Amino acid sequence: MRDGYVVAVVGATGAVGRQAVGLLEARRFPVRELRLAASPRSAGKRVDGHPVVALSEEVFEGCDIAIFDVPDEVSREWAPRAASRGVVVIDNAATFRLDPDVPLVIPEINGPRVLDRPRGIIANPNCTTATFLMPLAPLHRRYGLRRVVACSYQSVSGAGQAGVEQLWRELRAAAERGEPLEESLGSAFSHPIVFNVIPAIGSVRDGGHTSEELKAQAESRKILEHPTLEVGITCVRVPTLLGHGVAVHATFEQTPDLDEVREILRAAPGVEVVDDPRSGRYPTPLGAAGRDPAYVGRIRFDGAGNLAFFVVADNLRKGAALNAVQIAETVVALQPGLRPQPARA
Amino acid sequence: MRDGYVVAVVGATGAVGRQAVGLLEARRFPVRELRLAASPRSAGKRVDGHPVVALSEEVFEGCDIAIFDVPDEVSREWAPRAASRGVVVIDNAATFRLDPDVPLVIPEINGPRVLDRPRGIIANPNCTTATFLMPLAPLHRRYGLRRVVACSYQSVSGAGQAGVEQLWRELRAAAERGEPLEESLGSAFSHPIVFNVIPAIGSVRDGGHTSEELKAQAESRKILEHPTLEVGITCVRVPTLLGHGVAVHATFEQTPDLDEVREILRAAPGVEVVDDPRSGRYPTPLGAAGRDPAYVGRIRFDGAGNLAFFVVADNLRKGAALNAVQIAETVVALQPGLRPQPARA
Repeated sequence: MRDGYVVAVVGATGAVGRQAVGLLEARRFPVRELRLAASPRSAGKRVDGHPVVALSEEVFEGCDIAIFDVPDEVSREWAPRAASRGVVVIDNAATFRLDPDVPLVIPEINGPRVLDRPRGIIANPNCTTATFLMPLAPLHRRYGLRRVVACSYQSVSGAGQAGVEQLWRELRAAAERGEPLEESLGSAFSHPIVFNVIPAIGSVRDGGHTSEELKAQAESRKILEHPTLEVGITCVRVPTLLGHGVAVHATFEQTPDLDEVREILRAAPGVEVVDDPRSGRYPTPLGAAGRDPAYVGRIRFDGAGNLAFFVVADNLRKGAALNAVQIAETVVALQPGLRPQPARA
Repeated sequence: MRDGYVVAVVGATGAVGRQAVGLLEARRFPVRELRLAASPRSAGKRVDGHPVVALSEEVFEGCDIAIFDVPDEVSREWAPRAASRGVVVIDNAATFRLDPDVPLVIPEINGPRVLDRPRGIIANPNCTTATFLMPLAPLHRRYGLRRVVACSYQSVSGAGQAGVEQLWRELRAAAERGEPLEESLGSAFSHPIVFNVIPAIGSVRDGGHTSEELKAQAESRKILEHPTLEVGITCVRVPTLLGHGVAVHATFEQTPDLDEVREILRAAPGVEVVDDPRSGRYPTPLGAAGRDPAYVGRIRFDGAGNLAFFVVADNLRKGAALNAVQIAETVVALQPGLRPQPARA
């Protein structure tokens, strides 16, 4: 039995990186040595007391597992470099998610896929995708998902620290002025986000989709192994700090039974049903923030015959760091040896 | 030619009533005499300089047109009383909207329906319904709407002054504390609304729908005269002050052509296309607040073959007061005599 793993967190000073460090500790991941890396300008900082070094090849020397939360282009360069040294890379960037040689994993849904990683990289899905697949996947297994229309209510932390700072700055300015803002007070969003919603996330691509919407489509198909799944989605930024909500309207091959749907969701790992709207109980971003599960409520048939529900998960946890740490847990549970390292065993 | 009409605004001290008074003036509605009425505790106030009296039968004595924005139960009692005196009642409550003897009118869509009002009452639609039907109706006429899935992003002013006050109070408290609130600071919403979204509006009914969602379903079918229209909708409150957004994913009998869709929407009265997302141009609540049109953007086919778009309108204007004043304009345009009143002509 190994006495623990050498684990690196790359991008350790960002919100997701910090969460990952905290979760490795809180969930008692068997860490023998923790290495935190970030960009040169963050080197020298500390996260939870651990020093942060500038990203270099040395970080991956003798390293077992690395959780990456870095910009796509940094991932493109460094994830393969780490993997080529035998490190199991768990990458939160979009870079490799659709690579057929990279498994895209939500442990509760397709955990064993971590074993099939020809490039040594395992990809962590987009935060919105992870949120709405948590309840959809077990329902798909039972009823066969045909089509899903989803609209998101995404928090500013999904746009990183700049998004959080812009919302706080604008909130304070609005409180002082006593009126809505006319101009954006930050770099994350070109429109004010306080008292506003912004119906476009990411870059705009051919066909008028945003990059966020294309991720949700393609990643859903890959994770559910359902290449013909129809996904219609509108991704919208709302003035919340933490927690992505998604309103889901789904059509299945077989007609779901509502009582059974509730049973399936109650039994689904990582899913919590909060569904007593008459008593004001339904999922909200504030209720999900800082917590692990994907919360599901407002379960019903809509007026168009779809199964509908509202799901919220903490985008820094299930949408990012938690799922990454769960992938690491899955890897060491299914493959405790990782790679033989007798000298250090 | 009449030298103008005796117009009453009932519920004149509320946000919608005030808007109606302002719009009657701004749009130069031919008012000979303006009478403002409200509950006894608002009597004695002034709106735009006009005195407000307590609601009584006298208000409707010799009155031509009355715009009501009052609670459903007040409307139930007083709208028929006013109508029985020959007043043309334009009612913004939900009370009569589905009454087969009451036309439910969005002037740009079904204006001439105002003429067929056996009960003397014309109903003004729900604010979210009005918003998403503005672009959907002309598309329905061309392509035949089969099914619509819609998710709303509704501002707190839709919950009245209490909603607006709660959001401001919570925003100031969050700015002072520097952190999200754990408890609601108002009577409008039982959860905090600042930094939050609330996926339930109105009361919860059989089948798990909210009253707001049922209104959108039934009113869409009535206004479009399309009793088999499938409407799947999730109504969500978001922390915006003014402007209801709706993400719409619609299926038609005939496949729409995107260029033609844009042409139809550009030509549609009361609709403005704002659709250059690469340049950050799309509809937002802040952009629609205080303005008349329903703004439409993000026009595209989604990944499930639906025509998708995002539409925002000011819920106090197109969603309420503006539409009511437009109904009054339609009535006097089509039927300038209203009822013969030779003694006063």
